[in-house]
Amino acid sequence: MSDKTAVVLVSGGLDSATCLAHAIKQGYVCYALSFDYGQRSKSELVAAQRVVRAADVREHKIVELKLGELGGSALTDAAIDVPVQGSEGIPVTYVPARNTVFLAYALAWAEVLEAEAIFIGVNALDYSGYPDCRPEYIAAFQNLIDLATKTGVEGRRIKLATPLIDLSKEEIIKMGSGLGVDFANTVSCYQADASGKACGICDSCRLRKKGFADAGVADPTHYRD
Amino acid sequence: MSDKTAVVLVSGGLDSATCLAHAIKQGYVCYALSFDYGQRSKSELVAAQRVVRAADVREHKIVELKLGELGGSALTDAAIDVPVQGSEGIPVTYVPARNTVFLAYALAWAEVLEAEAIFIGVNALDYSGYPDCRPEYIAAFQNLIDLATKTGVEGRRIKLATPLIDLSKEEIIKMGSGLGVDFANTVSCYQADASGKACGICDSCRLRKKGFADAGVADPTHYRD
Repeated sequence: MSDKTAVVLVSGGLDSATCLAHAIKQGYVCYALSFDYGQRSKSELVAAQRVVRAADVREHKIVELKLGELGGSALTDAAIDVPVQGSEGIPVTYVPARNTVFLAYALAWAEVLEAEAIFIGVNALDYSGYPDCRPEYIAAFQNLIDLATKTGVEGRRIKLATPLIDLSKEEIIKMGSGLGVDFANTVSCYQADASGKACGICDSCRLRKKGFADAGVADPTHYRD
Repeated sequence: MSDKTAVVLVSGGLDSATCLAHAIKQGYVCYALSFDYGQRSKSELVAAQRVVRAADVREHKIVELKLGELGGSALTDAAIDVPVQGSEGIPVTYVPARNTVFLAYALAWAEVLEAEAIFIGVNALDYSGYPDCRPEYIAAFQNLIDLATKTGVEGRRIKLATPLIDLSKEEIIKMGSGLGVDFANTVSCYQADASGKACGICDSCRLRKKGFADAGVADPTHYRD
């Protein structure tokens, strides 16, 4: 294989859309990977499809995961309310081991594709409450990749790339704008409706709104009302 | 929760059956986890159900994974032959990132259950060809657990327990016998038929046969012919 290839996790949010555009700009042939993990908001997956269609991607897989049946998060468990204002500590929207499961799948696909890299749009600043978005978590997963895989044993490294990890939402939006990302394709809301309209009041909506305002970029989000 | 609880990976083979019996003997309330990952041999899952029914387990989840569609292994990809004699290096029966995906799910469930431990019956001696069965891989996954989870951040560790890791097949069979495991419930063959009968010639059958012979334990395996 002469082209360098990457598996890119695409959630439908603006971070992963920017991460995908960045990977393509870096010259990677990209294989997009999304998950249907019982998230309440199916509009995320519709957004992921729009994001991928708008980009130059070799293949898009949407893998169904049964994380929802394990319960334990406001994003997958209807018994837990989605918060509408910031809270201290680890948010109830944290899905147990989500990024670990996502990255494990990405690793399996990367091994089969003999890919050089896995891209994930995690961001430590705005999501400091999520343990699996921190740089030390990413370093631990890179170490696991190096030991876990046939590729690693044979001495060829699959790099776990996190180009957004140190950026603020404002900086991500500026970066995405520069790369030509159409943010109207993306959905960030934890409880978007079926048509993809955002609530405007959940943690994720508030971060996004502030990011567009701080970046001085027009906010293309479709809000309810 | 006053009892100590554990998630135990149960494949239907003799290693995981022994590992489960060991966890129960250690006083853990056990939640068994198996995967339908597109393995050719569905008799593995039937065996996993027999193993779990014969043990004192609180709950058994069989999670469907779409690893098979990624291809890349003789165990899930019909285009690759299962080898009938030992080979050097990493076997073609290696499923990309399999243990990483399995452990990621186990971790998600362990977090939701607030479990103290995850048990996996990996074994470094007989499966030295599988990178994700080595002690250094297990240490890397323990490190990931400590950093990945809400539990880890809050200072309570989920221990990744590998009681068989340094044992030979002979020693595992002796240990299982001592714990009262009925090995007739287990299937090890990479290409067992629908009724669970073993081929007797694949790598896994040969290891198992030799293990029973070395342990001086009667081999209850049902072989074809």
